Amino acid sequence: MKLADLGEFGLIARLKEKLAAQPEDVIVGIDDDAAVLRSSPDHLTLLTTDALIEGVHFSLDYFDYYQVGWRAMAANLSDIAAMGGEPQFAVISMGLPKDMPVASVDDLYDGLQSLAERSQTAIVGGDTTSSPRGLFLSIAVVGRVEERHLARRKGARVGDEIFVTGSVGAARAGYLVLNSEQMIKEDRFAALVKKHLTPFPRLQEARFLVQNFPINAMIDISDGLASEIHHICRCSQVGAMLTANSFPVETEAIEVAMRSSEEVLDYALYGGEDFELLFAVPPGYADDLVRKFRQSFDLGCTRIGEVRRASAGVELEMAAGQRVAIEHKGFDHFKPA
Amino acid sequence: MKLADLGEFGLIARLKEKLAAQPEDVIVGIDDDAAVLRSSPDHLTLLTTDALIEGVHFSLDYFDYYQVGWRAMAANLSDIAAMGGEPQFAVISMGLPKDMPVASVDDLYDGLQSLAERSQTAIVGGDTTSSPRGLFLSIAVVGRVEERHLARRKGARVGDEIFVTGSVGAARAGYLVLNSEQMIKEDRFAALVKKHLTPFPRLQEARFLVQNFPINAMIDISDGLASEIHHICRCSQVGAMLTANSFPVETEAIEVAMRSSEEVLDYALYGGEDFELLFAVPPGYADDLVRKFRQSFDLGCTRIGEVRRASAGVELEMAAGQRVAIEHKGFDHFKPA
Repeated sequence: MKLADLGEFGLIARLKEKLAAQPEDVIVGIDDDAAVLRSSPDHLTLLTTDALIEGVHFSLDYFDYYQVGWRAMAANLSDIAAMGGEPQFAVISMGLPKDMPVASVDDLYDGLQSLAERSQTAIVGGDTTSSPRGLFLSIAVVGRVEERHLARRKGARVGDEIFVTGSVGAARAGYLVLNSEQMIKEDRFAALVKKHLTPFPRLQEARFLVQNFPINAMIDISDGLASEIHHICRCSQVGAMLTANSFPVETEAIEVAMRSSEEVLDYALYGGEDFELLFAVPPGYADDLVRKFRQSFDLGCTRIGEVRRASAGVELEMAAGQRVAIEHKGFDHFKPA
Repeated sequence: MKLADLGEFGLIARLKEKLAAQPEDVIVGIDDDAAVLRSSPDHLTLLTTDALIEGVHFSLDYFDYYQVGWRAMAANLSDIAAMGGEPQFAVISMGLPKDMPVASVDDLYDGLQSLAERSQTAIVGGDTTSSPRGLFLSIAVVGRVEERHLARRKGARVGDEIFVTGSVGAARAGYLVLNSEQMIKEDRFAALVKKHLTPFPRLQEARFLVQNFPINAMIDISDGLASEIHHICRCSQVGAMLTANSFPVETEAIEVAMRSSEEVLDYALYGGEDFELLFAVPPGYADDLVRKFRQSFDLGCTRIGEVRRASAGVELEMAAGQRVAIEHKGFDHFKPA
């Protein structure tokens, strides 16, 4: 059997089985955005890693090196945010083609460091090596979180309300703009492009949420809303109902979808690359949460559904009232293109 | 300017400058085998990362997947050993070709896990992604060390005696055996091959050393003795004199060198890939250290030189008595082949 047949999720499930037995000080192992480790009586240590590979995650046709560095760091920091934590330290492995201009390495590094600095993350080491073909970056980030503030994928309860920060589908829309000779020239799409190239991880927002509200479960939606709501439901052993017409999709993203003959709903659900947070909160907090969140960050936070019993499945309620199952699909690295 | 012109050490120096300012809780940043972070009053946290890339660090012509996994883990654990620490947790980024058989992924993982388990290291997470061309692994390991046992590259003092564990040149000899149709068939070279394919990091040995002797400076010699003694001298602001005929080279490795028309001294100094420890200890401990080390591990530990003033340079005393400067060269990933 080839990897292409097993698929990414099959592979992860397989590796997870091999790692079933974990020592006592591993609070959360492979089954979340970051590992959670017992480090002191008050704090837990978070550890995560994420790679960015040329030709898989990005193309230098529309990413410059600064953006590649930024984007790689963002993916890792977003995993720390999704646990409710604060990043502290990062190490960076880089595979660089020999003919890469040194100025480009500088740009790459400036992108990494620029986001690291804004996120109070110290780059403390790394490994540089040549790459025979194409650029890759692999980052590992260590962070911390107070035990009472830890937010996991597991923990959502029947009746919880489900929220998402910011908007969905913007990164996919940005990608379409980048690949359109016409739309790339239009200024009003610049914010979408920025969300694709240099997304800002929701670190402060996550801290605000875990410090002020009972967040029962949280995840980032970098693999797309559909895939991530399934992760929360599987880990929490619950089901969910999302409401399609509540999805926060920006006007410009809707316009891009129409001009690209894509379905807005598809890219909200399956677009991925949005570094927003999806989380579950017990009923009764919605108004307060949405108001205070906007006051604090000048950013929306939207109720998009609720947690149900596992037997009710993971469904989407369409505008007309019909309900459809949400497929557990996201980007699978090993499926044939 | 291209990376090939700047070279690996030039690149690292350049990145180091960018990272000059570090927060207070970073005890050691980019300038050692692993980063050292303040985590609790008693313990320091170690963090390191190391990548293994097909076509750069290994070829599947003579590595099987189990060995690739083992080797990647060994390189990271050796960095923790070099600080005098104990590994605790690892995360693994893997870039895997889509057509890779799942059985090979299992083998790769078994290699990773086999060494991790023997080293009390929990694999707690990772990132799997497709790789358009060739396999790569990037691992990050978190470990810990008591502050009083921390061994750095910095700290060697004039008059210290310099030791190396085990033997030097064995990994290079193993590589030559692997690439020889004749020698690969000869059983007596099997141990050399094993040192190239599945080296065992000197974790227990390092702990024994830091717990029982005043280790002023330590490093692993994965880049070769020549390169690593220069690292210790630069970081400690000292010089060194190594004695060529004291180098512990195994008989079989000498035979391989002769049959391959290579200089034994060259591969002791520049061969690299030996996961041994190079360290400096104040005078007066040599006999006790060598004896107890052998009793504990059934392994040699050899005095190969001494620390001198920086102005005396880094020199090698040859068997005939003449002294030559040791070039600061090791494998440079960015130099044209």
